[in-house]
Amino acid sequence: MKLMQFQIDDMIKAALAEDINYIDVTTDYLIDEDKISTAQYVAKADGILCGIDIALRVFTILDPSASFEILIHDSQQVKHGDIIAKITAHTRALLKGERTALNILQHMSGISTATARCVKLCEGTSASVADTRKTLPGLRIFQKYAVTVGGGKNHRYNLSDCAMLKDTHLDAYGSITAAVKALREKMGHTVKIEVEVSNLDELSEALDSGCEIIMLDNMSCEQMSEAVKITNGKAALEASGNVTEQSIAQIAATGVDIISLGALTHSVKAFDISMKMVK
Amino acid sequence: MKLMQFQIDDMIKAALAEDINYIDVTTDYLIDEDKISTAQYVAKADGILCGIDIALRVFTILDPSASFEILIHDSQQVKHGDIIAKITAHTRALLKGERTALNILQHMSGISTATARCVKLCEGTSASVADTRKTLPGLRIFQKYAVTVGGGKNHRYNLSDCAMLKDTHLDAYGSITAAVKALREKMGHTVKIEVEVSNLDELSEALDSGCEIIMLDNMSCEQMSEAVKITNGKAALEASGNVTEQSIAQIAATGVDIISLGALTHSVKAFDISMKMVK
Amino acid sequence: MKLMQFQIDDMIKAALAEDINYIDVTTDYLIDEDKISTAQYVAKADGILCGIDIALRVFTILDPSASFEILIHDSQQVKHGDIIAKITAHTRALLKGERTALNILQHMSGISTATARCVKLCEGTSASVADTRKTLPGLRIFQKYAVTVGGGKNHRYNLSDCAMLKDTHLDAYGSITAAVKALREKMGHTVKIEVEVSNLDELSEALDSGCEIIMLDNMSCEQMSEAVKITNGKAALEASGNVTEQSIAQIAATGVDIISLGALTHSVKAFDISMKMVK
Amino acid sequence: MKLMQFQIDDMIKAALAEDINYIDVTTDYLIDEDKISTAQYVAKADGILCGIDIALRVFTILDPSASFEILIHDSQQVKHGDIIAKITAHTRALLKGERTALNILQHMSGISTATARCVKLCEGTSASVADTRKTLPGLRIFQKYAVTVGGGKNHRYNLSDCAMLKDTHLDAYGSITAAVKALREKMGHTVKIEVEVSNLDELSEALDSGCEIIMLDNMSCEQMSEAVKITNGKAALEASGNVTEQSIAQIAATGVDIISLGALTHSVKAFDISMKMVK
Amino acid sequence: MKLMQFQIDDMIKAALAEDINYIDVTTDYLIDEDKISTAQYVAKADGILCGIDIALRVFTILDPSASFEILIHDSQQVKHGDIIAKITAHTRALLKGERTALNILQHMSGISTATARCVKLCEGTSASVADTRKTLPGLRIFQKYAVTVGGGKNHRYNLSDCAMLKDTHLDAYGSITAAVKALREKMGHTVKIEVEVSNLDELSEALDSGCEIIMLDNMSCEQMSEAVKITNGKAALEASGNVTEQSIAQIAATGVDIISLGALTHSVKAFDISMKMVK
Amino acid sequence: MKLMQFQIDDMIKAALAEDINYIDVTTDYLIDEDKISTAQYVAKADGILCGIDIALRVFTILDPSASFEILIHDSQQVKHGDIIAKITAHTRALLKGERTALNILQHMSGISTATARCVKLCEGTSASVADTRKTLPGLRIFQKYAVTVGGGKNHRYNLSDCAMLKDTHLDAYGSITAAVKALREKMGHTVKIEVEVSNLDELSEALDSGCEIIMLDNMSCEQMSEAVKITNGKAALEASGNVTEQSIAQIAATGVDIISLGALTHSVKAFDISMKMVK
Repeated sequence: MKLMQFQIDDMIKAALAEDINYIDVTTDYLIDEDKISTAQYVAKADGILCGIDIALRVFTILDPSASFEILIHDSQQVKHGDIIAKITAHTRALLKGERTALNILQHMSGISTATARCVKLCEGTSASVADTRKTLPGLRIFQKYAVTVGGGKNHRYNLSDCAMLKDTHLDAYGSITAAVKALREKMGHTVKIEVEVSNLDELSEALDSGCEIIMLDNMSCEQMSEAVKITNGKAALEASGNVTEQSIAQIAATGVDIISLGALTHSVKAFDISMKMVK
Repeated sequence: MKLMQFQIDDMIKAALAEDINYIDVTTDYLIDEDKISTAQYVAKADGILCGIDIALRVFTILDPSASFEILIHDSQQVKHGDIIAKITAHTRALLKGERTALNILQHMSGISTATARCVKLCEGTSASVADTRKTLPGLRIFQKYAVTVGGGKNHRYNLSDCAMLKDTHLDAYGSITAAVKALREKMGHTVKIEVEVSNLDELSEALDSGCEIIMLDNMSCEQMSEAVKITNGKAALEASGNVTEQSIAQIAATGVDIISLGALTHSVKAFDISMKMVK
Repeated sequence: MKLMQFQIDDMIKAALAEDINYIDVTTDYLIDEDKISTAQYVAKADGILCGIDIALRVFTILDPSASFEILIHDSQQVKHGDIIAKITAHTRALLKGERTALNILQHMSGISTATARCVKLCEGTSASVADTRKTLPGLRIFQKYAVTVGGGKNHRYNLSDCAMLKDTHLDAYGSITAAVKALREKMGHTVKIEVEVSNLDELSEALDSGCEIIMLDNMSCEQMSEAVKITNGKAALEASGNVTEQSIAQIAATGVDIISLGALTHSVKAFDISMKMVK
Repeated sequence: MKLMQFQIDDMIKAALAEDINYIDVTTDYLIDEDKISTAQYVAKADGILCGIDIALRVFTILDPSASFEILIHDSQQVKHGDIIAKITAHTRALLKGERTALNILQHMSGISTATARCVKLCEGTSASVADTRKTLPGLRIFQKYAVTVGGGKNHRYNLSDCAMLKDTHLDAYGSITAAVKALREKMGHTVKIEVEVSNLDELSEALDSGCEIIMLDNMSCEQMSEAVKITNGKAALEASGNVTEQSIAQIAATGVDIISLGALTHSVKAFDISMKMVK
Repeated sequence: MKLMQFQIDDMIKAALAEDINYIDVTTDYLIDEDKISTAQYVAKADGILCGIDIALRVFTILDPSASFEILIHDSQQVKHGDIIAKITAHTRALLKGERTALNILQHMSGISTATARCVKLCEGTSASVADTRKTLPGLRIFQKYAVTVGGGKNHRYNLSDCAMLKDTHLDAYGSITAAVKALREKMGHTVKIEVEVSNLDELSEALDSGCEIIMLDNMSCEQMSEAVKITNGKAALEASGNVTEQSIAQIAATGVDIISLGALTHSVKAFDISMKMVK
Repeated sequence: MKLMQFQIDDMIKAALAEDINYIDVTTDYLIDEDKISTAQYVAKADGILCGIDIALRVFTILDPSASFEILIHDSQQVKHGDIIAKITAHTRALLKGERTALNILQHMSGISTATARCVKLCEGTSASVADTRKTLPGLRIFQKYAVTVGGGKNHRYNLSDCAMLKDTHLDAYGSITAAVKALREKMGHTVKIEVEVSNLDELSEALDSGCEIIMLDNMSCEQMSEAVKITNGKAALEASGNVTEQSIAQIAATGVDIISLGALTHSVKAFDISMKMVK
């Protein structure tokens, strides 16, 4: 996994604090403190798994003696009915961590599964699938990781690491050309510039400005095909704007290089997984 | 709003830190530091608004001199094309906060809108719509608030404030009766007990145990109607398990008291809102 | 223990930071870094022990190689002169953690011991002893846990998990009946309602309102006996208001269900324990 | 006040988070969001007030529009029935902050009041009253401040800012003389050395060692009087060990310079204050 | 300024907590709480100012009523004897914040001044001056900002926002060509690739690989001049490795595009500024 | 080492978060997750090592399976070319932690090395070398520790643990005598008083006031020699004000007790160390 424990633990502890607060009134009063049980994760749908190490980390935080058998790892296909992992730990820890771990695992697997579907729909074209900054507060690192697990690519992580020129920025400088030039003089040399364009005239100006990436904002597939021809590899072309699983294949066929979808992270459908105690 | 500033600010600052990191390379290098602009939120869909105060708080944190005109408040209906609010602030702050504020507003409004649809589908029945603990890490307080804004009710906030007896707990005590009795002796007097049952025999035992709430787990509508008759008001009945907008009206018609849906918070579809600069 | 390590460690680290700041000038300059010693906790009073796992955790945080022999556990009786636990660790860690660990152990055992005395005074009656929200900032989870270790019960943990109607709330609605009705319509189904009453007329109205718990505020024992008769099991009755160890037995004899004492947590007398190096 | 806002706010927010968690179910559902009320603090006992600015800060954090009239300030005498302060704020904020603010104010005033009693008992002697490191986790700064408000003095804040030689340290060096010498060579020049002694022989050695302060550990008043004569101003003498309000005057009469009491901070009795809504 | 208050305040509060701890024993006991004074910053050297808003924010955090007159702003030249700013605030706040504010201002101005000297030494060439990731723990955002204030440019902020191929990475793939190809296939489209080379053969391979930036690691000026000719604008060339103020002009003259210096941030000489009370 | 893990880990995690942000795009995409490598630290200069345990802790945090062989410890001499330590860990962890660990190790060793040079220059005199409060935000604990590793001593840690009378304080009381007297009456007994003087008249008054330490502010060596004679051991004398490695020996020869240098911590030159992979 690309994420390190120090990037994960604070999120897990915050989630556990939300879910447990003081005690688990049911479990702490009814389950013997020394009891050990085994539980397993069972898939209730088909998709691409993501977040298993993070989900299991929940139990280690609650019970350092917890042990695991992982049958399906991040990026691997999972089918309805598959056993994903087995967890042996104190019963109290299993019950206290169940919901938190599932909330994480289902959310991340939901993202990787939806991403994988989009990637598959683009197969055979030159288009890669990318996320956006339309992520949920505090969860960007987990959501962007999940996109890569599903075969997608990460767009910029934040406002520091790639310039993106939109209307307001351009208005302030009068033209794409002037704005790109100003940026180049001021910015660090490791930062690329992306320019948002909404028609082919703007595309031409953007191409001449020397920017590395051009976002085709809400263009029709016809326009995008034309844009691909005009561009001819002189910049990376990114299709953006209300892309759906219905429209993505057609967009990919236009020859654009990247298709970015906010929905991958802002409208996630949880992937159904259940935790069952092994009797 | 029921949430207080001290409950909101840390989430906003964490989200801003994720999104800005060092600087906004585009904005900080191109937009004059002293420039002031006005932007407005425009709805791109119909629904119930939620989170407007939190979204606007983003701009105050970035720019204490920001001022607002709120046209539509939390819980109010919003229609495609409506102007929701106008924000006047330093242009840099507007551009730096835009994404973070929208991410929050769209997520929360997505929850309130979906909840309101479910509530509407239950109109004319005695069923209320409730959330679950299937929330996203770090966001429970915002998600549960959004459910109430949509007309839903909050199920337990965490494992401390309501007991919920499931298989594993019951197994440890041999019977519903014994487990409920044990809990009553140990728990504080302010905590209710909910028992999960999967058939009518268990329902009868649960009713006799004196628990306050009974969860009908994945029962058919026929079973639930029967459960309502048997229960006859002696406990609150909660229908749970893969409830959808397709099935909820029929479930509500059985006479259950509460219908809880994990999807309200674990599978949120962002509500489309855009921020436009006013020229 | 009902508390988990992730709920404990931040408090311990904050306490250590307060007490150590930079270094322990005496210990760090005089004691050899590699020296190992054994220390033991000795009780200087009689009571009920609480917090031993938390106190020992202090030493593990300072010295992961620390080892322990626990002779008396939480909830067990301890008598003056008893050895409670033996700790073997680096001498520096023992000396640096001594004060922090004792501060915790003495405070928590002070609460459990006082609670146990109150519980004993109520023996033979139906009254249970409960804490309140009159806790010290940042320490509620530890104080409420200590109350349960002493045999007491936890009143509500916070303002979210039980409704409590007081004068100001009732004034806003004109009557107990109206306020309880309004709350029921708006609140989640897992939350109980407690109504504070100061005379028997209010008690009658509260009973009719269908609330689950009624707080008898500063009533005389005669009034409370009468209240028990009138209530006849239709609601739980809680006696509250300047209850002391002198008055509690008499109050319990009235037949009330719960007696809550702020003093259990707001006026704690530390339980005397010393740490001695074993030569 | 000696404490600054940045030292106070985190404690207050943590305490509010403990007490409110999600919402105040009673207040948020029953009290109109726009309603404004006035409340006042009324003393229910006699003593020295401490913490009023911190308590009122609770309401400012909940409601930036809150306004105050402070009638009695920190360090001032307060008598049963006195109105301490008046607070005008949103009713919701008053009710949500009430418990948190009182918990702080009652604890701090309890400390300052007990300290003032001890100080008064030492009047006419040369003895000052000091606190110890026996403080509650996370609250040292507030407790030590309250001691000074009551007229007491602060002993060392932590293990960095004063050396204190105890048995274990001395054992490691064979003699007081050797240990003090070793410390002087290694420590910074701003740090004083205190040596704990339990008899007059040790006292003599400590005096010869050149330490600045000598702690007379659990000595009888006769021994302490003798110690004062022997010392004759060559070091500051601190009486320590189970000092109580019963014994302190007699100890002060021996001529010691400082009397330190753990009970000032580890066994605090809350000072009774109530908050009443002004109708 | 490019930094926002939410990015600054935590650092300031941490620094104040380090410096004040409990109280300022000198100031809190000697200076009247209500006293107001005016102080001014006076430069004791020539250079480029940086951090004035952050330094003054220290006083606002300690005293919300503090007011300022700023005579010299970030990026402006300052000469020995210049008055930089005047601060009017409570005397206690001035004295408590003095050291923390100066520590920040002197460190940041030290960086901007050294950067400006390097930039000046490169005037008339095409070389820009850049920082590195050799920053001090917790201070990167402030150090990198100071570099831009001095006229330098920011190299990558972190390991996420630009790829940098070094020996170990190349070894894993056998060749520059293979490693760059592998990265392109996996990375997001907004990320540039920089390849570190130590001779002209590697330079040629790097150029053919299509990477955007090539780091000339510890090359002689002759080699670098040759590298510039070979490259002929096909990639940006970065000179790196023990660059000093003595060698930088000569390096710049080779025609490289960027010269990066770790010393700008890892070996900062504080810029001398004093704070004087205005009598 | 005098620093404990709980004092170190938060700084390391903050530094890692700064440096890694999301992922290490180069390493995570190119290096196999299971690959293990060995690296070693090699000194590129002569000096005194400091921070090796903290630097290695970086790798344990990234990879709990990391193992170390430490050849040179804190306080030991290190020569150009020396191997300081060997680290075996997952290659990804080695690469991700490299910069953070070096930044810490180089900064701390820079401080200890410069301190040791100053200490050596004072050899044969009675002068000890001390740091100041001129430290970098958030790093005081690490910087002050490094000073002691280099053989220096710590001046006060913060404003609470030693009083320091400067102009402003004295002005408020009219005279040194009055100010020292006022402080003694109010302060705790463990706190020393230092008075800043700028001429021999003030020195005499300070000596008569009974303060423990006197700071000779920017005096000439002649004045300081005279001050030493006048003082004759009645107070500790501290020389302060723009002391450099050029002037320190001469200052030490005057007979002062302490020489404090802000430059030890505010103008640190990183000590050059490199990390090399062992093939």
